[in-house]
Amino acid sequence: MRKKRLMAPGPTPVPEESLLAMARPAFHHRTSTFMEMFQEVNEGLKYAFQTSNPVLTFASSGTGGMEGAVVNTLCAGDTALVVRGGKFGERWAEICQSYGVKVVPIDVEWGRAVEPDQIAKELKKNAAIKAVFTTLCETSTAVLTDIEGVGKIMRGTDALLVVDAISGLCADDLRTDVWGVDIVVGASQKGLMTPPGLAFVSLSDRARSAMSKSTLPKYYFSFQKALKSLEKTDTAFTPAVPLVVALSKSLAMLKEETLEKVLARHGRLAEAARAGVKGMGLELFSKAPGNTVTALKVPDGVDGSELYKNIMESFGVTLAGGQGMLKGKILRIAHLGYCDDFDLLNALAAIEMALKKMGYKQIEVGAGVVAAERALAESEV
Amino acid sequence: MRKKRLMAPGPTPVPEESLLAMARPAFHHRTSTFMEMFQEVNEGLKYAFQTSNPVLTFASSGTGGMEGAVVNTLCAGDTALVVRGGKFGERWAEICQSYGVKVVPIDVEWGRAVEPDQIAKELKKNAAIKAVFTTLCETSTAVLTDIEGVGKIMRGTDALLVVDAISGLCADDLRTDVWGVDIVVGASQKGLMTPPGLAFVSLSDRARSAMSKSTLPKYYFSFQKALKSLEKTDTAFTPAVPLVVALSKSLAMLKEETLEKVLARHGRLAEAARAGVKGMGLELFSKAPGNTVTALKVPDGVDGSELYKNIMESFGVTLAGGQGMLKGKILRIAHLGYCDDFDLLNALAAIEMALKKMGYKQIEVGAGVVAAERALAESEV
Repeated sequence: MRKKRLMAPGPTPVPEESLLAMARPAFHHRTSTFMEMFQEVNEGLKYAFQTSNPVLTFASSGTGGMEGAVVNTLCAGDTALVVRGGKFGERWAEICQSYGVKVVPIDVEWGRAVEPDQIAKELKKNAAIKAVFTTLCETSTAVLTDIEGVGKIMRGTDALLVVDAISGLCADDLRTDVWGVDIVVGASQKGLMTPPGLAFVSLSDRARSAMSKSTLPKYYFSFQKALKSLEKTDTAFTPAVPLVVALSKSLAMLKEETLEKVLARHGRLAEAARAGVKGMGLELFSKAPGNTVTALKVPDGVDGSELYKNIMESFGVTLAGGQGMLKGKILRIAHLGYCDDFDLLNALAAIEMALKKMGYKQIEVGAGVVAAERALAESEV
Repeated sequence: MRKKRLMAPGPTPVPEESLLAMARPAFHHRTSTFMEMFQEVNEGLKYAFQTSNPVLTFASSGTGGMEGAVVNTLCAGDTALVVRGGKFGERWAEICQSYGVKVVPIDVEWGRAVEPDQIAKELKKNAAIKAVFTTLCETSTAVLTDIEGVGKIMRGTDALLVVDAISGLCADDLRTDVWGVDIVVGASQKGLMTPPGLAFVSLSDRARSAMSKSTLPKYYFSFQKALKSLEKTDTAFTPAVPLVVALSKSLAMLKEETLEKVLARHGRLAEAARAGVKGMGLELFSKAPGNTVTALKVPDGVDGSELYKNIMESFGVTLAGGQGMLKGKILRIAHLGYCDDFDLLNALAAIEMALKKMGYKQIEVGAGVVAAERALAESEV
């Protein structure tokens, strides 16, 4: 018997109540039953996104929401500033380039965060920049961007601030309206504790005004169509009903715990995760770690892909390895969404036991778990 | 106590086993667990689509698959022939126009089917036509297109044949490879007995070769990306895991029943539905009805929207009203997917009882049910 534990930065575990809710018999979405639920979901999303603006829901994975943010605000030939410090920053650039948007990249060393001043400098240098695309948590490197700082330096400029918050939302604080974020893209399978298959997009007044001038082609991801339907508590195209049902349960849990406490829980887990990694004698990868995911450097002499595999196959714990140039070099532990103290201790124990099993001599089994447990015991719940 | 019964042309009822399977704890999609299931799903889709070619799966509703079929095969300025005989034919035209594809429409009276010869004539007249977009079952009018006939007249031409089979697949026969259909677009929430949120696209060799020349912009719906991932039994972006899990169960049921018998069951139900409508003394709307959905004309003096509402609210049965110019004028009964003899009798009884309740004098309660039951009893199972 080997229980399975999911600790990857998405998909994340889904509360049992939300899972079971999906087994509800199929019902039509153009009914009061759906509309009443969707109305509540829309309010819950505004709460999670910390915005009073509308939040659109698409049947798609998060990338569809990112594509929507590009094609609904820009025109071919427009210039966009893209922060590229990992796989998801690169995705912004790829999407822009696919649609003929000129990309001015800020290439940030993987593992480091962009400085808001770098963005300010580029904006000053290039008045053509229509939008800045960045990420809240760059999942591939476990780096948190200072969105508040970026928002500050962008105040007074005409460029839109667009944030991929797919993995970070509800784990790392993102004060959408207060910090002046025009578009936040989210997805269901991360901090929102829902299975994958839904993308979300919040739109500021400025974003909606850019929409009316955008000429890039779109249909399925048309924000105009989605907004028009949202006014009638509807979606432009058939929604993924069971995922919306699961989301409604998970959003209710989020509201009950309160966003403030959810964010504090993630902060506490992240701190304990870092203490655990250091307690094992290992090194953190990210120089700007956030609350979503913790990345550790795989120690010399250990095959990172083997370590990931060993943790999954021998101990039933799904973590995440490195992506792109970090393949085999880092291991990522997500403490994201439906995750508590003991889930984190399990993940740390599995890493220690796998390292021991793989013959890594420097590991003192238990040291990481003890360090994390002490951090948890000492911090307020 | 009022049981709910779903008889709309999508979403359709989902078998209990598939619903319950979605409650399975979340697991990661980049694991052997997912890949083994997805491998089977891909084989099952080929079986359902009657093709030996790859069938792509997207987290999106069917419209996303339609958009993909346009943006992956054409270039801006290309010409497409579009059969417009209902809401979904119109959608093909809208998508093409959104991307700067010139539309040559064949406007067919709603309720009638296009003649393959009309398509042949247009193709002869206009050598620039790169693709023909049509529907298997035009859900809005309950009209079945003669795809076999269209395939025949298109043989030897260079134009691609693209069929929206979203509602018709597995209800109306569609011999993709035999009839020479290049692209078939499907969705989960119809004959495939799965909740909404997945789109499918089959691609012939000719379609794949058109892809390599297509310059329309795309990212999330890129067939190249999807095909490349499919080769590794993966998806380009995070799949909607619970929907794939449900689909795997429903495809297993389909295989067990066999596609041949599934199609025969739909044919038998459709025939009984037509007998039932006539038995009630009402008129069929479609001049070319298929196996997916049956449309009846709302009798004079009856408010069609009220009738639809009454059937739902007083009798718990969800049917579908008319769309666009047919709003209030027709009522549609889907006998689609997870539907048997008694489901159909229920729907017919609800219509009769609602008409009676609404004071429609000409209805003889039971007459439609009797006619349908006789048709069912007389036809072989």
